[in-house]
Amino acid sequence: MPDDNNPIPHWQRQDLPPMLTRRFEFESYAETRRFLDGVAQLAEEARLHPNLSFGKTYVSVTIDADGKKVGPDCVALAQKIDGLVAPAT
Amino acid sequence: MPDDNNPIPHWQRQDLPPMLTRRFEFESYAETRRFLDGVAQLAEEARLHPNLSFGKTYVSVTIDADGKKVGPDCVALAQKIDGLVAPAT
Repeated sequence: MPDDNNPIPHWQRQDLPPMLTRRFEFESYAETRRFLDGVAQLAEEARLHPNLSFGKTYVSVTIDADGKKVGPDCVALAQKIDGLVAPAT
Repeated sequence: MPDDNNPIPHWQRQDLPPMLTRRFEFESYAETRRFLDGVAQLAEEARLHPNLSFGKTYVSVTIDADGKKVGPDCVALAQKIDGLVAPAT
């Protein structure tokens, strides 16, 4: 059942250890690189250091909460990262 | 027993699927970023797309051989990546 109040429905939440993860797929390495650069900039602005795992056409983002509960700062970063791939509508 | 003829002793070789992996640790996020940029450039020159997994102070590099045997091109890229962290002696 979808939760309309969940601001980040595409992310998986894990509680132990607390983290948010989402996998993104791309058509080309160029798109993958552009996305990685965008995430690096957003992460720097948020002063968070998500773990990224990527290959030619995918990126898995894991935002870990450093052992604390997943907080609004983590959710805000996840939303901004979603914004990098949101259709411009 | 060390193999003096192994050009990449710090890498682990796996045969199924064929790949080379090495984990690198750094003191700071700035060093991690510098290393990542270096790997991206070397990979582009080699026309290979290693899988990278990284956090604030570590990078795991996996060079997969696309199902084929690990060839000289993979070993050469591993050596060049080693060169990014080799002490300047």
